[in-house]
Amino acid sequence: MSAADLMAVLIARHFRYDPDAPRDASNDHLVFSKGHASPLLYAMFKAMGFIDDEEFLTYRRLGSRLEGHPVPILPWVEVATGSLGQGLPIGVGMAIAGKHLDRLPYRVWVLCGDSEMAEGSMNEALEHAGHLGLGNLIAIVDVNRLGQTGETMHGWDLDAYRDRAEVFGWRTIEVDGHDPAAIDGAYAQAAAPDGRPTMIVARTIKGYGVGEVANKEGWHGKALAHPEQAIAELGGERHLLVPPLKPARLGDPHRFPAGRLELPRYPVGSEAATRQAYGDALAALGSARGEVVALDGEVSNSTFSEVFREAHPERYFEMYIAEQQMVAAAVGIQVRGWVPFASTFAAFLTRAYDFVRMAAISRADIRLSGSHAGVSIGEDGPSQMALEDLAMMRAVHGSTVLYPCDANQAAQLVALMADLTGISYIRTTRAKTPVIYGPDERFAVGGSKVLRSSGDDQAAVVTAGITVHEALKAADTLAKEGISVRVIDAYSVKPIDAATLRRAAAETGGRLITVEDHWPEGGLGAAVLDVFADEDLRPRVVNLAVRDMPGSGKPDELLAAAGIDAAHIADAARRLARAGPQIGSLERRT
Amino acid sequence: MSAADLMAVLIARHFRYDPDAPRDASNDHLVFSKGHASPLLYAMFKAMGFIDDEEFLTYRRLGSRLEGHPVPILPWVEVATGSLGQGLPIGVGMAIAGKHLDRLPYRVWVLCGDSEMAEGSMNEALEHAGHLGLGNLIAIVDVNRLGQTGETMHGWDLDAYRDRAEVFGWRTIEVDGHDPAAIDGAYAQAAAPDGRPTMIVARTIKGYGVGEVANKEGWHGKALAHPEQAIAELGGERHLLVPPLKPARLGDPHRFPAGRLELPRYPVGSEAATRQAYGDALAALGSARGEVVALDGEVSNSTFSEVFREAHPERYFEMYIAEQQMVAAAVGIQVRGWVPFASTFAAFLTRAYDFVRMAAISRADIRLSGSHAGVSIGEDGPSQMALEDLAMMRAVHGSTVLYPCDANQAAQLVALMADLTGISYIRTTRAKTPVIYGPDERFAVGGSKVLRSSGDDQAAVVTAGITVHEALKAADTLAKEGISVRVIDAYSVKPIDAATLRRAAAETGGRLITVEDHWPEGGLGAAVLDVFADEDLRPRVVNLAVRDMPGSGKPDELLAAAGIDAAHIADAARRLARAGPQIGSLERRT
Repeated sequence: MSAADLMAVLIARHFRYDPDAPRDASNDHLVFSKGHASPLLYAMFKAMGFIDDEEFLTYRRLGSRLEGHPVPILPWVEVATGSLGQGLPIGVGMAIAGKHLDRLPYRVWVLCGDSEMAEGSMNEALEHAGHLGLGNLIAIVDVNRLGQTGETMHGWDLDAYRDRAEVFGWRTIEVDGHDPAAIDGAYAQAAAPDGRPTMIVARTIKGYGVGEVANKEGWHGKALAHPEQAIAELGGERHLLVPPLKPARLGDPHRFPAGRLELPRYPVGSEAATRQAYGDALAALGSARGEVVALDGEVSNSTFSEVFREAHPERYFEMYIAEQQMVAAAVGIQVRGWVPFASTFAAFLTRAYDFVRMAAISRADIRLSGSHAGVSIGEDGPSQMALEDLAMMRAVHGSTVLYPCDANQAAQLVALMADLTGISYIRTTRAKTPVIYGPDERFAVGGSKVLRSSGDDQAAVVTAGITVHEALKAADTLAKEGISVRVIDAYSVKPIDAATLRRAAAETGGRLITVEDHWPEGGLGAAVLDVFADEDLRPRVVNLAVRDMPGSGKPDELLAAAGIDAAHIADAARRLARAGPQIGSLERRT
Repeated sequence: MSAADLMAVLIARHFRYDPDAPRDASNDHLVFSKGHASPLLYAMFKAMGFIDDEEFLTYRRLGSRLEGHPVPILPWVEVATGSLGQGLPIGVGMAIAGKHLDRLPYRVWVLCGDSEMAEGSMNEALEHAGHLGLGNLIAIVDVNRLGQTGETMHGWDLDAYRDRAEVFGWRTIEVDGHDPAAIDGAYAQAAAPDGRPTMIVARTIKGYGVGEVANKEGWHGKALAHPEQAIAELGGERHLLVPPLKPARLGDPHRFPAGRLELPRYPVGSEAATRQAYGDALAALGSARGEVVALDGEVSNSTFSEVFREAHPERYFEMYIAEQQMVAAAVGIQVRGWVPFASTFAAFLTRAYDFVRMAAISRADIRLSGSHAGVSIGEDGPSQMALEDLAMMRAVHGSTVLYPCDANQAAQLVALMADLTGISYIRTTRAKTPVIYGPDERFAVGGSKVLRSSGDDQAAVVTAGITVHEALKAADTLAKEGISVRVIDAYSVKPIDAATLRRAAAETGGRLITVEDHWPEGGLGAAVLDVFADEDLRPRVVNLAVRDMPGSGKPDELLAAAGIDAAHIADAARRLARAGPQIGSLERRT
């Protein structure tokens, strides 16, 4: 109710939107950063004629499109909100798309709560919007003074919000959020671009219009005790229809040139880092497809997104060291059909986990690249080593998790990512690794490659990334000892190639070794165990992973110290070979 | 080199520190928020006489204490840094400890990089330090203009940093970072408290003093090409000894009263939410132990940390909606021996994952509570449902992960957490659940409880939290059908009670069902599979977990829709009972 007047004036006089063509490029965009104001959003949909009373009354019921917080299963909702502090950074992404990609003057309206201004991600958004001069972005801050548990840090001190926004380069307008004429004037001013984003700081009253709750604590997220009385106070039951203004046709969105995909080719036997291949392939993909966009967290010379930046500077966005804003911008950019790839050190993607989680709820298609995986980075030490990223990314609904071991494979996987839906993640390695696949080898999401195999394998090593090369060394050593081990490059960690794993289990007498430059929890080993959990044939699985806190050292030393190098793999294989088949007669029978 | 003059003046004239008693309450604190400046930090340790040349030359070698980024295996380092944007928020925690807990006038000096000011977490720190009036906190911002890949957003625009700090209520001093007298004056001014935190904004030159690299791009993190020449330029090899100033004895740290622990007691057969028990127990713990402190992300009436706040307002810190700052403050507070518990919705702890990861590298002892786990929260929808928190927290080095199913158990576990080292996490449930344990029942980290068992169990259900009650219902239903299932309450998800699981596998013919209100990846099911991976006896494990994106609905409806309610558990048990024993003769023999 605090923001009802703000939104009523917006839809009556400023919001330009064609509900019959919700993806039309001429539409304005509206994000409820304060997603818990969903009753207001749905009331707007009702007022604009998008939903009827019957559907409105399904609010928060099982199967309803009207969930507790907005999600894009509704055609008029573009991103999920409900984790506070995300709508404005996502709006920054939409505004980037408008100004720099589509190059159309649609506006991005974001309704923000005052409580959520405490999130650092909101400051990242303020900083980036100011820096980029996003004059098409309008934040409406509903300063109703009351958070969930009590008064916010700044209460009704509107100047606190105004001063913070201005220092980041925003134009600001303070307004009484219950004065329709004042709101109308503010919107008109905001919509007249002056090259700066605009923040409308509105003084409002929580529960406005209903005496029982107005400006009172203890009512956050609660139903009214006396709804009939409230309806009467608000003027009785009404059925206003306020269709949004039809947008003027703004013209066709800008399109960047496209061509034939010519992925980089690395000669077998040479050495190249998969992170280098990420950058090379992304640049090639950018040349082939004009809709591909790159973002980076100020480490483009480490992730090699700099190759894309140099090739396609107009489609590269420097997000500085602000990983939350980076992922949020990717979400905002993909709303308009662009294909964003965002990169930083894999370890620092942990900074944006809430944004990745929410991106999945947004049904967003975004691609993330995390470089410098695992202890193999060497001297920089554990703060820079991603050792939880596979667990983190696997536990995202509908995600794809890829982990290449060589440059040609990495390049092919990057190309595949462009067409994936949902959250896709590629994990790259700092060190140069041997190129073992020819440039014409093909890979698939859900695939794997068997790199060593004989008719009589006594174990199978399942691994991905840098430890593939350790497994190959181990296999060569073991072969000299008369022990044959299969080596499986499980580059698609999620979905994993269950069929190949099943065959390996059956053909090795149920003797598997998983190897990963990652903590033991939630990574490749867990993915392999999951395949067999509820099957008749359940192999023994030795999981080699990083179990002690690493320090600095040379990559080889750290792989050895973690027990995931060739020597440890060979030891595990010898033990399994000695132990004999691990599948009992019961399983063999089934 | 950009910050060398800043730090030289600090240790020569202002930093008060007794290296022989690094945990002494009278010491100042120093945090290198720009952890990549570790060579400078170690050079300071050399200059102050803490390390010798021989050790200095072990920098970044395997086994050295001098890692690529500082970690607290060095006695003079209190927290790990290297993920940018964390040192200042942690410094806020230390300053909170000084002002509000220890109540001693030690100072907290934080060296910040200019690049990292782009992290939203730095703004959270600025906001909180200003709000709390942390006059004991001094941030020194090394504005050397150059980030890793090029110029920062603000270059040498010192005013940009000054204005941002001032708007958050900081005192600021701009200074030439290579003018020792000016630096000295700035520190003297900063150390004279005026109730505001102080930011010293220093204009510096990256690579100062060495022509080859000074103010040049492309040298971030790289060794000099001509070190001999650089040493000559810097005045030749020198061996200055600059011991820090001995701190004046500031007096004894404040202590809060302590008493006997009287945990809340809930009658068996009643209903209570585990989140309520968290708050009740935390308040009781606070009465028993004066060192217990609580923080919350502005949802204390949901997490029930409000019970602590009301009982011990002096030891409760409202972190508003700033989860990164909340976890960082906990890390800073525990440096001084306090025992912090930080709570928010479990879903929103994803916001702080990088801080949790780094806290483990800091060897910090912090306790986290995540409420509103899983689909069982009901109508609020997926943005508020933690479905990845078990995976996230299990993949933290040395972590403890607890998930109680009833209020007495939750209370006991909260009490245990106070004495745990490392990162410990308790997952609580929104709904009221039946109290099934008596208030005198005891629980242990690494323990479990067998709630139903007969001599002839045909399957075992392993679960925790809200689904324990579903499992009990299923067991009761199945008993009427003549199917006996064991029910194991695996409240300690990490470490898990392997012995009890092994016994269950052996005694049920290898028929296990895991049930969790969580995505299938990385949670309880994965923990159970991990126990058996490399063992002779490997049971079949049916993993019931949330596999589709949930929406809104009633808790019971959502548990059913996710396939983790009593009916689905019973179905899985019937299937296993029909299937017969799952352990082959080979395993039975071993």
